[in-house]
Amino acid sequence: MNEIELANMKPAEFRHAVRKGEWTGGSIMACRGYVQSNVTIVPKEYAYEFLLYCNRNPRPCPVIDVTDIGDPHPKFSPEADLRTDLTRYKVFKNGELVDEPTDITDYWRDDLVGFLLGCSYSFDWLLQAAKVKYRLVGAFITNIQCTPAGRFEGPMVASCRLFESAHDAIRATQVTTRCPAVHGPPVHVGDPAVIGVQDITHADFDVRPNTIPQQPGEVVMFWGCGITPEMTAKKANLPLMITQGDIDLLVTDWVTEELTVL
Amino acid sequence: MNEIELANMKPAEFRHAVRKGEWTGGSIMACRGYVQSNVTIVPKEYAYEFLLYCNRNPRPCPVIDVTDIGDPHPKFSPEADLRTDLTRYKVFKNGELVDEPTDITDYWRDDLVGFLLGCSYSFDWLLQAAKVKYRLVGAFITNIQCTPAGRFEGPMVASCRLFESAHDAIRATQVTTRCPAVHGPPVHVGDPAVIGVQDITHADFDVRPNTIPQQPGEVVMFWGCGITPEMTAKKANLPLMITQGDIDLLVTDWVTEELTVL
Repeated sequence: MNEIELANMKPAEFRHAVRKGEWTGGSIMACRGYVQSNVTIVPKEYAYEFLLYCNRNPRPCPVIDVTDIGDPHPKFSPEADLRTDLTRYKVFKNGELVDEPTDITDYWRDDLVGFLLGCSYSFDWLLQAAKVKYRLVGAFITNIQCTPAGRFEGPMVASCRLFESAHDAIRATQVTTRCPAVHGPPVHVGDPAVIGVQDITHADFDVRPNTIPQQPGEVVMFWGCGITPEMTAKKANLPLMITQGDIDLLVTDWVTEELTVL
Repeated sequence: MNEIELANMKPAEFRHAVRKGEWTGGSIMACRGYVQSNVTIVPKEYAYEFLLYCNRNPRPCPVIDVTDIGDPHPKFSPEADLRTDLTRYKVFKNGELVDEPTDITDYWRDDLVGFLLGCSYSFDWLLQAAKVKYRLVGAFITNIQCTPAGRFEGPMVASCRLFESAHDAIRATQVTTRCPAVHGPPVHVGDPAVIGVQDITHADFDVRPNTIPQQPGEVVMFWGCGITPEMTAKKANLPLMITQGDIDLLVTDWVTEELTVL
Protein backbone atom coordinates (compact mmCIF):
# COMPACT_ATOMS: atom_id res chain seq x y z
CA MET A 1 0.00 0.00 0.00
CA ASN A 2 1.53 3.34 -0.97
CA GLU A 3 1.14 6.67 0.85
CA ILE A 4 -1.72 7.86 -1.32
CA GLU A 5 -3.70 4.65 -0.91
CA LEU A 6 -3.10 4.80 2.85
CA ALA A 7 -4.31 8.40 3.05
CA ASN A 8 -7.39 7.67 0.96
CA MET A 9 -8.61 4.75 3.10
CA LYS A 10 -11.72 5.15 5.24
CA PRO A 11 -11.39 4.31 8.95
CA ALA A 12 -13.32 1.02 8.89
CA GLU A 13 -11.38 -0.10 5.83
CA PHE A 14 -8.07 0.73 7.51
CA ARG A 15 -9.09 -0.95 10.77
CA HIS A 16 -10.13 -4.10 8.92
CA ALA A 17 -6.76 -4.26 7.19
CA VAL A 18 -5.04 -3.97 10.57
CA ARG A 19 -7.44 -6.47 12.16
CA LYS A 20 -6.67 -9.07 9.50
CA GLY A 21 -2.93 -8.44 9.74
CA GLU A 22 -2.83 -7.08 6.19
CA TRP A 23 -1.34 -3.77 7.35
CA THR A 24 1.29 -3.61 10.08
CA GLY A 25 3.06 -0.34 9.31
CA GLY A 26 1.50 1.99 11.88
CA SER A 27 -1.08 4.71 11.31
CA ILE A 28 0.95 7.78 10.35
CA MET A 29 -0.74 9.45 7.40
CA ALA A 30 -3.52 6.88 7.24
CA CYS A 31 -7.12 8.00 6.56
CA ARG A 32 -6.77 11.66 5.64
CA GLY A 33 -8.86 13.96 7.79
CA TYR A 34 -9.89 11.44 10.43
CA VAL A 35 -9.12 11.60 14.12
CA GLN A 36 -6.48 9.18 15.35
CA SER A 37 -6.37 8.28 18.98
CA ASN A 38 -3.97 7.03 21.58
CA VAL A 39 -5.34 4.26 23.74
CA THR A 40 -4.66 3.48 27.39
CA ILE A 41 -6.37 0.46 28.92
CA VAL A 42 -6.52 -0.12 32.67
CA PRO A 43 -8.57 -2.31 35.04
CA LYS A 44 -11.71 -0.56 36.31
CA GLU A 45 -10.21 -0.32 39.78
CA TYR A 46 -7.81 2.32 38.43
CA ALA A 47 -10.18 3.98 35.98
CA TYR A 48 -11.13 6.92 38.19
CA GLU A 49 -7.57 7.93 38.98
CA PHE A 50 -6.54 7.56 35.36
CA LEU A 51 -9.47 9.63 34.10
CA LEU A 52 -8.66 12.29 36.69
CA TYR A 53 -5.01 12.25 35.61
CA CYS A 54 -6.16 12.87 32.03
CA ASN A 55 -8.52 15.65 33.13
CA ARG A 56 -5.72 17.36 35.01
CA ASN A 57 -3.40 17.09 32.00
CA PRO A 58 -5.57 17.88 28.99
CA ARG A 59 -2.69 18.88 26.69
CA PRO A 60 -1.02 15.45 26.59
CA CYS A 61 -4.17 13.49 27.51
CA PRO A 62 -7.35 14.88 25.90
CA VAL A 63 -10.02 12.24 26.54
CA ILE A 64 -12.32 11.84 23.53
CA ASP A 65 -13.95 8.50 24.35
CA VAL A 66 -14.16 6.01 27.23
CA THR A 67 -15.39 2.45 26.78
CA ASP A 68 -17.87 0.83 29.09
CA ILE A 69 -16.27 -1.59 31.53
CA GLY A 70 -15.26 -4.75 29.68
CA ASP A 71 -16.41 -3.46 26.31
CA PRO A 72 -13.61 -3.36 23.70
CA HIS A 73 -15.66 -1.11 21.41
CA PRO A 74 -15.38 2.69 21.68
CA LYS A 75 -18.69 4.47 22.35
CA PHE A 76 -18.34 6.80 19.38
CA SER A 77 -16.64 4.44 16.91
CA PRO A 78 -18.53 1.28 17.82
CA GLU A 79 -17.34 -0.69 14.83
CA ALA A 80 -13.75 -0.37 16.06
CA ASP A 81 -12.25 -3.01 18.33
CA LEU A 82 -9.54 -1.99 20.79
CA ARG A 83 -8.22 -5.56 20.89
CA THR A 84 -7.26 -5.83 17.25
CA ASP A 85 -7.35 -2.50 15.42
CA LEU A 86 -3.99 -1.04 16.43
CA THR A 87 -0.91 -2.22 14.58
CA ARG A 88 1.04 -2.60 17.83
CA TYR A 89 0.48 -2.42 21.57
CA LYS A 90 2.61 -2.19 24.68
CA VAL A 91 1.64 -4.39 27.61
CA PHE A 92 2.83 -3.42 31.08
CA LYS A 93 2.59 -5.70 34.09
CA ASN A 94 3.50 -4.35 37.51
CA GLY A 95 5.06 -1.37 35.77
CA GLU A 96 7.30 -3.38 33.45
CA LEU A 97 6.93 -3.61 29.69
CA VAL A 98 6.41 -7.32 29.13
CA ASP A 99 5.09 -7.59 25.59
CA GLU A 100 4.60 -5.60 22.38
CA PRO A 101 1.98 -7.64 20.52
CA THR A 102 0.00 -6.80 17.41
CA ASP A 103 -3.22 -8.02 19.02
CA ILE A 104 -4.35 -7.99 22.66
CA THR A 105 -7.30 -10.38 22.45
CA ASP A 106 -5.54 -12.75 24.83
CA TYR A 107 -4.97 -9.95 27.34
CA TRP A 108 -8.53 -8.65 27.26
CA ARG A 109 -10.58 -8.99 30.44
CA ASP A 110 -14.10 -8.14 31.56
CA ASP A 111 -12.86 -5.48 33.96
CA LEU A 112 -10.82 -3.41 31.48
CA VAL A 113 -11.64 0.16 30.52
CA GLY A 114 -10.23 1.80 27.39
CA PHE A 115 -9.45 5.52 27.26
CA LEU A 116 -9.08 7.16 23.87
CA LEU A 117 -6.88 10.24 23.83
CA GLY A 118 -6.85 12.39 20.69
CA CYS A 119 -3.55 12.27 18.77
CA SER A 120 -1.73 15.10 17.03
CA TYR A 121 -1.61 13.10 13.78
CA SER A 122 -5.20 14.31 13.54
CA PHE A 123 -4.23 17.96 13.17
CA ASP A 124 -1.40 17.30 10.75
CA TRP A 125 -4.11 17.13 8.10
CA LEU A 126 -5.33 20.57 9.07
CA LEU A 127 -1.81 22.00 9.00
CA GLN A 128 -1.29 20.58 5.54
CA ALA A 129 -4.65 21.94 4.36
CA ALA A 130 -3.52 25.36 5.64
CA LYS A 131 -0.28 24.91 3.65
CA VAL A 132 1.83 25.20 6.78
CA LYS A 133 5.38 24.11 5.96
CA TYR A 134 6.98 21.89 8.58
CA ARG A 135 8.55 18.55 9.33
CA LEU A 136 7.48 16.14 12.03
CA VAL A 137 10.46 15.07 14.07
CA GLY A 138 9.52 12.68 16.83
CA ALA A 139 8.53 12.66 20.48
CA PHE A 140 10.63 13.53 23.50
CA ILE A 141 10.46 13.03 27.24
CA THR A 142 10.40 16.58 28.65
CA ASN A 143 11.11 18.01 32.08
CA ILE A 144 7.50 19.27 32.31
CA GLN A 145 5.89 17.36 35.17
CA CYS A 146 2.25 16.37 34.74
CA THR A 147 -0.18 17.15 37.54
CA PRO A 148 -0.45 13.88 39.50
CA ALA A 149 -3.70 12.07 40.24
CA GLY A 150 -3.37 9.27 42.75
CA ARG A 151 -0.77 6.79 41.57
CA PHE A 152 -0.46 8.36 38.12
CA GLU A 153 2.40 10.80 37.75
CA GLY A 154 5.37 11.45 35.52
CA PRO A 155 6.84 13.76 32.91
CA MET A 156 5.05 14.96 29.80
CA VAL A 157 6.08 13.49 26.46
CA ALA A 158 5.89 16.05 23.66
CA SER A 159 5.90 15.68 19.90
CA CYS A 160 8.22 18.00 18.02
CA ARG A 161 7.69 19.82 14.73
CA LEU A 162 10.10 22.13 12.92
CA PHE A 163 8.45 24.98 11.01
CA GLU A 164 10.04 26.52 7.96
CA SER A 165 9.33 30.07 9.10
CA ALA A 166 7.90 32.10 11.97
CA HIS A 167 4.79 32.60 9.87
CA ASP A 168 4.31 28.84 9.61
CA ALA A 169 4.79 28.45 13.37
CA ILE A 170 2.24 31.15 14.16
CA ARG A 171 -0.29 29.62 11.76
CA ALA A 172 0.28 26.25 13.40
CA THR A 173 -0.46 27.74 16.82
CA GLN A 174 -3.68 29.19 15.47
CA VAL A 175 -4.79 26.03 13.69
CA THR A 176 -4.04 23.69 16.58
CA THR A 177 -5.67 26.01 19.12
CA ARG A 178 -8.92 25.09 17.38
CA CYS A 179 -8.34 21.42 18.24
CA PRO A 180 -8.16 20.88 22.01
CA ALA A 181 -9.47 17.33 21.49
CA VAL A 182 -6.22 16.41 19.74
CA HIS A 183 -3.76 18.19 22.07
CA GLY A 184 -4.66 21.78 21.19
CA PRO A 185 -1.99 24.50 21.06
CA PRO A 186 1.73 23.84 21.49
CA VAL A 187 3.17 23.45 24.99
CA HIS A 188 6.50 24.99 23.98
CA VAL A 189 8.10 27.18 21.33
CA GLY A 190 11.81 27.89 20.96
CA ASP A 191 14.85 26.49 22.75
CA PRO A 192 14.19 22.77 23.34
CA ALA A 193 16.62 22.76 26.29
CA VAL A 194 14.10 24.81 28.29
CA ILE A 195 11.86 21.75 28.46
CA GLY A 196 14.78 19.38 28.88
CA VAL A 197 15.23 18.29 25.26
CA GLN A 198 18.95 18.30 24.41
CA ASP A 199 19.08 17.04 20.83
CA ILE A 200 16.14 17.06 18.46
CA THR A 201 17.95 14.69 16.10
CA HIS A 202 17.66 11.93 18.72
CA ALA A 203 14.02 11.50 19.62
CA ASP A 204 13.01 9.29 22.53
CA PHE A 205 10.21 8.00 20.33
CA ASP A 206 11.05 8.08 16.66
CA VAL A 207 7.65 8.55 15.14
CA ARG A 208 9.46 9.83 12.08
CA PRO A 209 13.24 9.49 12.34
CA ASN A 210 15.02 12.79 11.78
CA THR A 211 18.74 13.35 11.41
CA ILE A 212 18.64 16.96 10.21
CA PRO A 213 19.18 19.53 12.95
CA GLN A 214 17.24 22.79 13.17
CA GLN A 215 18.00 24.99 10.15
CA PRO A 216 18.43 28.79 10.18
CA GLY A 217 15.00 30.41 10.26
CA GLU A 218 13.21 27.26 11.37
CA VAL A 219 11.04 27.52 14.48
CA VAL A 220 10.71 24.50 16.75
CA MET A 221 7.47 23.79 18.64
CA PHE A 222 6.26 20.96 20.86
CA TRP A 223 2.81 19.54 21.54
CA GLY A 224 1.57 17.32 24.36
CA CYS A 225 1.76 13.69 23.23
CA GLY A 226 -0.36 10.66 24.02
CA ILE A 227 2.70 8.57 24.83
CA THR A 228 2.68 10.48 28.15
CA PRO A 229 0.59 7.88 30.07
CA GLU A 230 3.41 5.36 29.47
CA MET A 231 5.59 7.52 31.71
CA THR A 232 3.28 6.71 34.63
CA ALA A 233 3.42 2.95 34.18
CA LYS A 234 6.44 2.13 36.32
CA LYS A 235 5.42 4.13 39.38
CA ALA A 236 1.69 3.37 39.07
CA ASN A 237 2.66 -0.29 39.11
CA LEU A 238 -0.68 -1.63 37.87
CA PRO A 239 -1.12 -5.39 37.49
CA LEU A 240 -2.05 -4.65 33.86
CA MET A 241 -1.86 -1.52 31.72
CA ILE A 242 -1.91 -1.49 27.94
CA THR A 243 -1.01 1.39 25.61
CA GLN A 244 -0.61 1.90 21.89
CA GLY A 245 2.70 1.46 20.10
CA ASP A 246 4.63 4.62 19.26
CA ILE A 247 3.23 4.98 15.74
CA ASP A 248 0.23 2.69 16.13
CA LEU A 249 -2.87 4.75 16.75
CA LEU A 250 -6.51 3.85 16.54
CA VAL A 251 -8.26 5.51 13.61
CA THR A 252 -11.69 6.66 14.80
CA ASP A 253 -14.83 7.50 12.83
CA TRP A 254 -14.63 11.24 13.60
CA VAL A 255 -13.19 13.71 11.15
CA THR A 256 -10.95 16.21 12.88
CA GLU A 257 -13.17 19.16 11.99
CA GLU A 258 -15.98 17.60 14.04
CA LEU A 259 -13.91 18.03 17.19
CA THR A 260 -12.69 21.59 16.63
CA VAL A 261 -13.91 24.39 18.86
CA LEU A 262 -13.90 27.09 16.20
CA MET B 1 -23.63 45.47 50.11
CA ASN B 2 -24.65 47.06 46.83
CA GLU B 3 -24.06 45.71 43.33
CA ILE B 4 -20.90 47.70 42.77
CA GLU B 5 -19.33 46.60 46.05
CA LEU B 6 -20.27 43.00 45.25
CA ALA B 7 -18.69 43.18 41.80
CA ASN B 8 -15.53 44.77 43.16
CA MET B 9 -14.86 42.12 45.81
CA LYS B 10 -11.97 39.71 45.39
CA PRO B 11 -12.73 35.97 45.61
CA ALA B 12 -11.20 35.33 49.05
CA GLU B 13 -12.96 38.41 50.43
CA PHE B 14 -16.31 37.26 49.03
CA ARG B 15 -15.81 33.69 50.26
CA HIS B 16 -14.96 34.93 53.76
CA ALA B 17 -18.13 37.01 53.84
CA VAL B 18 -20.14 33.92 52.85
CA ARG B 19 -18.22 31.71 55.29
CA LYS B 20 -19.02 34.03 58.20
CA GLY B 21 -22.66 34.33 57.17
CA GLU B 22 -22.26 38.03 56.36
CA TRP B 23 -23.46 37.54 52.79
CA THR B 24 -26.30 35.18 51.95
CA GLY B 25 -27.61 36.61 48.67
CA GLY B 26 -26.05 34.25 46.14
CA SER B 27 -23.11 34.90 43.82
CA ILE B 28 -24.67 36.52 40.75
CA MET B 29 -22.52 39.47 39.73
CA ALA B 30 -20.04 38.93 42.56
CA CYS B 31 -16.29 39.35 41.92
CA ARG B 32 -16.13 40.82 38.44
CA GLY B 33 -14.00 38.79 36.05
CA TYR B 34 -13.54 35.72 38.23
CA VAL B 35 -14.65 32.20 37.42
CA GLN B 36 -17.66 30.96 39.34
CA SER B 37 -18.23 27.26 39.64
CA ASN B 38 -21.01 24.81 40.24
CA VAL B 39 -20.18 22.12 42.75
CA THR B 40 -21.31 18.50 42.89
CA ILE B 41 -20.12 16.37 45.78
CA VAL B 42 -20.40 12.57 45.78
CA PRO B 43 -18.87 9.69 47.76
CA LYS B 44 -15.68 8.32 46.18
CA GLU B 45 -17.49 5.12 45.24
CA TYR B 46 -19.42 7.12 42.62
CA ALA B 47 -16.64 9.49 41.60
CA TYR B 48 -15.57 7.62 38.47
CA GLU B 49 -19.05 7.40 37.00
CA PHE B 50 -19.76 11.03 37.81
CA LEU B 51 -16.49 12.22 36.27
CA LEU B 52 -17.24 10.14 33.19
CA TYR B 53 -20.75 11.63 33.02
CA CYS B 54 -19.19 15.11 33.07
CA ASN B 55 -16.64 14.15 30.42
CA ARG B 56 -19.40 12.89 28.17
CA ASN B 57 -21.42 16.07 28.66
CA PRO B 58 -18.89 18.89 28.58
CA ARG B 59 -21.39 21.63 27.66
CA PRO B 60 -23.43 21.44 30.88
CA CYS B 61 -20.64 19.87 32.98
CA PRO B 62 -17.18 21.29 32.19
CA VAL B 63 -14.90 19.98 34.94
CA ILE B 64 -12.39 22.60 36.04
CA ASP B 65 -11.24 21.15 39.35
CA VAL B 66 -11.60 17.93 41.37
CA THR B 67 -10.77 17.71 45.06
CA ASP B 68 -8.72 14.91 46.55
CA ILE B 69 -10.84 12.35 48.38
CA GLY B 70 -12.02 13.82 51.67
CA ASP B 71 -10.39 17.20 51.04
CA PRO B 72 -12.89 20.11 51.06
CA HIS B 73 -10.37 22.45 49.43
CA PRO B 74 -10.23 22.76 45.62
CA LYS B 75 -6.83 21.98 44.10
CA PHE B 76 -6.61 25.27 42.24
CA SER B 77 -8.33 27.56 44.77
CA PRO B 78 -6.90 25.99 47.92
CA GLU B 79 -8.02 28.78 50.21
CA ALA B 80 -11.65 28.05 49.35
CA ASP B 81 -13.67 25.60 51.42
CA LEU B 82 -16.47 23.64 49.77
CA ARG B 83 -18.19 23.17 53.13
CA THR B 84 -18.81 26.83 53.86
CA ASP B 85 -18.15 29.09 50.89
CA LEU B 86 -21.41 28.72 48.96
CA THR B 87 -24.42 30.70 50.10
CA ARG B 88 -26.70 27.69 49.76
CA TYR B 89 -26.49 23.96 49.06
CA LYS B 90 -28.90 21.19 48.14
CA VAL B 91 -28.46 17.87 49.95
CA PHE B 92 -29.87 14.73 48.32
CA LYS B 93 -30.18 11.42 50.13
CA ASN B 94 -31.27 8.35 48.17
CA GLY B 95 -32.32 10.67 45.38
CA GLU B 96 -34.52 12.93 47.48
CA LEU B 97 -33.81 16.56 48.31
CA VAL B 98 -33.67 16.51 52.11
CA ASP B 99 -32.04 19.81 53.04
CA GLU B 100 -31.02 23.20 51.64
CA PRO B 101 -28.50 24.41 54.20
CA THR B 102 -26.11 27.38 54.06
CA ASP B 103 -23.23 25.24 55.34
CA ILE B 104 -22.47 21.52 54.86
CA THR B 105 -19.83 21.06 57.53
CA ASP B 106 -22.08 18.57 59.32
CA TYR B 107 -22.57 16.58 56.13
CA TRP B 108 -18.88 16.43 55.19
CA ARG B 109 -17.21 13.01 55.24
CA ASP B 110 -13.74 11.63 54.59
CA ASP B 111 -14.90 9.80 51.48
CA LEU B 112 -16.42 12.78 49.62
CA VAL B 113 -15.09 14.15 46.34
CA GLY B 114 -15.99 17.62 45.08
CA PHE B 115 -16.32 18.36 41.38
CA LEU B 116 -16.16 21.98 40.26
CA LEU B 117 -17.98 22.72 37.01
CA GLY B 118 -17.44 26.12 35.40
CA CYS B 119 -20.54 28.37 35.47
CA SER B 120 -21.83 30.71 32.78
CA TYR B 121 -21.86 33.62 35.23
CA SER B 122 -18.15 33.61 34.45
CA PHE B 123 -18.64 34.60 30.82
CA ASP B 124 -21.29 37.23 31.57
CA TRP B 125 -18.37 39.50 32.42
CA LEU B 126 -16.84 38.89 29.00
CA LEU B 127 -20.16 39.57 27.26
CA GLN B 128 -20.49 42.83 29.15
CA ALA B 129 -16.91 43.80 28.33
CA ALA B 130 -17.75 43.17 24.66
CA LYS B 131 -20.81 45.44 25.10
CA VAL B 132 -23.15 42.64 24.12
CA LYS B 133 -26.72 43.70 24.96
CA TYR B 134 -28.82 40.98 26.55
CA ARG B 135 -30.84 39.96 29.56
CA LEU B 136 -30.31 36.82 31.62
CA VAL B 137 -33.58 35.01 32.03
CA GLY B 138 -33.20 31.83 34.07
CA ALA B 139 -32.59 28.14 33.62
CA PHE B 140 -34.87 25.53 32.07
CA ILE B 141 -35.11 21.76 32.00
CA THR B 142 -34.80 20.88 28.31
CA ASN B 143 -35.67 17.80 26.29
CA ILE B 144 -31.98 17.33 25.39
CA GLN B 145 -30.87 14.06 26.99
CA CYS B 146 -27.36 13.94 28.39
CA THR B 147 -25.14 11.00 27.44
CA PRO B 148 -25.46 8.57 30.36
CA ALA B 149 -22.53 7.21 32.34
CA GLY B 150 -23.43 4.38 34.67
CA ARG B 151 -26.18 5.47 37.03
CA PHE B 152 -25.94 9.13 36.00
CA GLU B 153 -28.45 10.16 33.36
CA GLY B 154 -31.09 12.81 32.78
CA PRO B 155 -32.02 15.87 30.76
CA MET B 156 -29.81 18.90 30.25
CA VAL B 157 -30.66 22.10 32.12
CA ALA B 158 -29.90 25.19 30.06
CA SER B 159 -29.59 28.84 31.00
CA CYS B 160 -31.43 31.30 28.78
CA ARG B 161 -30.36 34.72 27.55
CA LEU B 162 -32.29 37.12 25.33
CA PHE B 163 -30.16 39.21 23.00
CA GLU B 164 -31.24 42.63 21.80
CA SER B 165 -30.25 41.92 18.19
CA ALA B 166 -28.88 39.24 15.91
CA HIS B 167 -25.53 41.01 16.06
CA ASP B 168 -25.48 40.68 19.85
CA ALA B 169 -26.36 36.98 19.59
CA ILE B 170 -23.61 36.30 17.07
CA ARG B 171 -21.06 38.16 19.19
CA ALA B 172 -22.18 36.11 22.20
CA THR B 173 -21.60 32.89 20.27
CA GLN B 174 -18.11 34.06 19.38
CA VAL B 175 -17.20 35.21 22.87
CA THR B 176 -18.51 32.12 24.65
CA THR B 177 -16.89 29.76 22.14
CA ARG B 178 -13.61 30.98 23.63
CA CYS B 179 -14.68 29.66 27.05
CA PRO B 180 -15.28 25.88 26.97
CA ALA B 181 -14.36 25.73 30.68
CA VAL B 182 -17.51 27.70 31.53
CA HIS B 183 -19.95 25.94 29.17
CA GLY B 184 -18.57 27.23 25.88
CA PRO B 185 -20.87 28.07 22.95
CA PRO B 186 -24.68 27.96 23.15
CA VAL B 187 -26.49 24.64 22.84
CA HIS B 188 -29.50 26.24 21.16
CA VAL B 189 -30.56 29.35 19.26
CA GLY B 190 -34.11 30.24 18.24
CA ASP B 191 -37.45 28.64 19.04
CA PRO B 192 -37.29 27.44 22.67
CA ALA B 193 -39.98 24.82 21.97
CA VAL B 194 -37.46 22.87 19.90
CA ILE B 195 -35.63 21.98 23.11
CA GLY B 196 -38.82 21.57 25.08
CA VAL B 197 -39.05 25.03 26.66
CA GLN B 198 -42.62 26.29 26.41
CA ASP B 199 -42.55 29.64 28.20
CA ILE B 200 -39.42 31.64 28.85
CA THR B 201 -41.23 33.82 31.37
CA HIS B 202 -41.52 30.82 33.69
CA ALA B 203 -38.05 29.45 34.34
CA ASP B 204 -37.61 26.16 36.15
CA PHE B 205 -34.77 27.79 38.05
CA ASP B 206 -35.24 31.52 38.47
CA VAL B 207 -31.66 32.68 38.58
CA ARG B 208 -33.02 36.09 37.61
CA PRO B 209 -36.82 36.21 37.52
CA ASN B 210 -38.14 37.45 34.20
CA THR B 211 -41.71 38.33 33.34
CA ILE B 212 -41.09 40.01 30.01
CA PRO B 213 -41.58 37.74 26.98
CA GLN B 214 -39.30 37.79 23.95
CA GLN B 215 -39.51 41.17 22.17
CA PRO B 216 -39.49 41.72 18.38
CA GLY B 217 -35.91 41.50 17.12
CA GLU B 218 -34.63 39.74 20.22
CA VAL B 219 -32.75 36.47 19.71
CA VAL B 220 -32.98 33.77 22.35
CA MET B 221 -30.07 31.44 23.08
CA PHE B 222 -29.42 28.70 25.62
CA TRP B 223 -26.25 27.42 27.26
CA GLY B 224 -25.56 24.18 29.14
CA CYS B 225 -26.06 24.81 32.87
CA GLY B 226 -24.38 23.34 35.94
CA ILE B 227 -27.74 22.60 37.53
CA THR B 228 -27.82 19.61 35.15
CA PRO B 229 -26.26 17.10 37.60
CA GLU B 230 -29.26 17.66 39.91
CA MET B 231 -31.39 16.01 37.21
CA THR B 232 -29.48 12.77 37.77
CA ALA B 233 -30.03 12.69 41.54
CA LYS B 234 -33.31 10.81 41.70
CA LYS B 235 -32.38 7.96 39.38
CA ALA B 236 -28.75 7.73 40.53
CA ASN B 237 -30.13 7.27 44.03
CA LEU B 238 -26.86 7.91 45.87
CA PRO B 239 -26.83 7.69 49.66
CA LEU B 240 -25.46 11.26 49.59
CA MET B 241 -25.07 13.84 46.83
CA ILE B 242 -24.66 17.57 47.39
CA THR B 243 -24.98 20.36 44.82
CA GLN B 244 -24.96 24.15 44.89
CA GLY B 245 -28.10 26.22 45.26
CA ASP B 246 -29.56 27.72 42.09
CA ILE B 247 -27.77 31.08 42.41
CA ASP B 248 -25.12 30.03 44.91
CA LEU B 249 -21.88 29.34 43.09
CA LEU B 250 -18.36 29.00 44.39
CA VAL B 251 -16.15 31.93 43.39
CA THR B 252 -12.74 30.52 42.42
CA ASP B 253 -9.35 32.22 42.21
CA TRP B 254 -9.18 32.02 38.41
CA VAL B 255 -10.07 34.96 36.21
CA THR B 256 -12.18 33.87 33.26
CA GLU B 257 -9.55 34.92 30.74
CA GLU B 258 -7.16 32.34 32.22
CA LEU B 259 -9.46 29.54 31.10
CA THR B 260 -10.21 30.76 27.57
CA VAL B 261 -8.88 28.84 24.59
CA LEU B 262 -8.27 31.89 22.41
